[in-house]
Amino acid sequence: MKNRQIILVARPKAKLGPEHFRMSEGAALEPKEGEVLLRVHLISLDAANRAWMHGATYRSAVEAGSVMAGGAIAEVVTSRAPDFRPGDLVFADTGWQDYATLAAKALSKVPRIEPMTHLLSVYGIAGLTAYFGLLRIGRPQPGETVIVSAAAGSVGSFVGQIGKIKGCRVVGIAGGAAKCDWLVNELGFDAAVDYKAGSVHATLKAAVASGIDVYFDNVGGDILEACLALMNVRGRIVCCGAVSAYDGAAPAAGPRGVPGLIVVKRLLMQGFIVTDYFDDRQVAVAELQRWVQTGQIKIEEDVIQGLENTPKALIGLLAGENRGKRMVRVSE
Amino acid sequence: MKNRQIILVARPKAKLGPEHFRMSEGAALEPKEGEVLLRVHLISLDAANRAWMHGATYRSAVEAGSVMAGGAIAEVVTSRAPDFRPGDLVFADTGWQDYATLAAKALSKVPRIEPMTHLLSVYGIAGLTAYFGLLRIGRPQPGETVIVSAAAGSVGSFVGQIGKIKGCRVVGIAGGAAKCDWLVNELGFDAAVDYKAGSVHATLKAAVASGIDVYFDNVGGDILEACLALMNVRGRIVCCGAVSAYDGAAPAAGPRGVPGLIVVKRLLMQGFIVTDYFDDRQVAVAELQRWVQTGQIKIEEDVIQGLENTPKALIGLLAGENRGKRMVRVSE
Repeated sequence: MKNRQIILVARPKAKLGPEHFRMSEGAALEPKEGEVLLRVHLISLDAANRAWMHGATYRSAVEAGSVMAGGAIAEVVTSRAPDFRPGDLVFADTGWQDYATLAAKALSKVPRIEPMTHLLSVYGIAGLTAYFGLLRIGRPQPGETVIVSAAAGSVGSFVGQIGKIKGCRVVGIAGGAAKCDWLVNELGFDAAVDYKAGSVHATLKAAVASGIDVYFDNVGGDILEACLALMNVRGRIVCCGAVSAYDGAAPAAGPRGVPGLIVVKRLLMQGFIVTDYFDDRQVAVAELQRWVQTGQIKIEEDVIQGLENTPKALIGLLAGENRGKRMVRVSE
Repeated sequence: MKNRQIILVARPKAKLGPEHFRMSEGAALEPKEGEVLLRVHLISLDAANRAWMHGATYRSAVEAGSVMAGGAIAEVVTSRAPDFRPGDLVFADTGWQDYATLAAKALSKVPRIEPMTHLLSVYGIAGLTAYFGLLRIGRPQPGETVIVSAAAGSVGSFVGQIGKIKGCRVVGIAGGAAKCDWLVNELGFDAAVDYKAGSVHATLKAAVASGIDVYFDNVGGDILEACLALMNVRGRIVCCGAVSAYDGAAPAAGPRGVPGLIVVKRLLMQGFIVTDYFDDRQVAVAELQRWVQTGQIKIEEDVIQGLENTPKALIGLLAGENRGKRMVRVSE
């Protein structure tokens, strides 16, 4: 079977561009004992994909010359492992290609639901990251103020909606008036701050008169610095990502107020990855399903067609062009 | 009764010096209903005293023209409050003076022990800060590596010794070879890093081959930055103080690696003040007493004589001249 693969040509030193990728063609590998041949349906695009190019994170770095890494929903074509049969759906790091041959232990079985895209958005890494990060680290209490950056992105849009379900005042930070309007008018955020429209600190300060209790940080940098200054005593900062630092050279310094404001205001800052909480995954998915059914959570997806468009889709995501969960459909 | 008072003349814009203080003399105030007249015995000196001059922290700022604030062990002389009798010992923010007249609700009764100085060191804010910060936020496990900065200071020396009791490898960061030798040879630290002897990052890296699990941060700044880079996955940073930022202008930036390393390594950074844990104060004091009795905790105290020497004693503390808990004896 013909297998198209997108190769990372070189790890970018500054901004990621199309020149860092090339398409390659070969044959899919036959699975060995304990392995499974998968057909990729939907590739998840995430800001973290760019971070993997910097070096080892919670996973090893993506090396130049190899298939670009990425999580995907895929279907078993041939199995030489006892727990998997043709037609089974899985989530796995297949990389950016039509077919992947992986060890069975690298796969997580997922149910067949309609639409399948929800397995990458609300019931996938995005929804679960929002759920566990906000509820286990942020621990928002009714009446508190929750701020989320990259609020129109996949994780951020769920964070804000879960914050509303928990009885909080929710303010989103996003780029551009269209996204801000959408957050307030469609998703029910109490307010939105357009970080492209001037001083974030001043606009944010006006939007959070009673200070910030929980800041769900997807971006780091200046926005983290502005939020730190506005945190209330015993506030919690959920450190989920630092997209402001991903697509370029490493920042020369961190935000002012670390650790001074952490000490004085007794703040908590905590990083996590969603798999830390996977023991409770079923509970979380069940609760998310209920919220989707009652209409308390709306799902926005941005599905790009065709494996060949994956590099462009990631580059665009890093520039903030998507709303909701971006993914690439490789096959039906 | 004649009452000498040390007045903060002006809030320093840069380094604190003797010119920021003056001695004043007046009469002690008669207590009104609900108040108590106290004679000050021992004034606690803490890096936080300097932080209070910057502005409101967990307490209001110390204002120019007022008596310099500070915690002390004091004795009741006259009481117009039902719960206090002459001869009772209390801990209170008396400020830097011979006598203080305070509302009864601002006082914490303390037992009479010998030597009384231990009420400010191991059984006072210093010992309890080390105890609760390390055990409740740092949560060190046997075999883990604990790093503490300002390790020869009052809090730091207890943090390291408690870390050893908990079965950890303990490395202290301190200024100068004499302090470092003392940490290793007298207090039983496994190693000590002299931050004045060259690149902290390189020396520290050599001292913590297996990375850092718990960093108890008293200083912030470059040392925090160096430790962040060496933290292990799921490491904990106890944000206790930022003395590097206290005696001068506010830092222009924070440490590199915030929030990138917090995300990637799933770190926790948390600030606290010791009174957050005062519900469990008796348990903590009992455990500290046991460790003192068995010789597992050694107590170092640096007692300066005379109220008039308090400004110089604080200036010296900020320059790192003390070893162990510094305090001023105002009266016997």
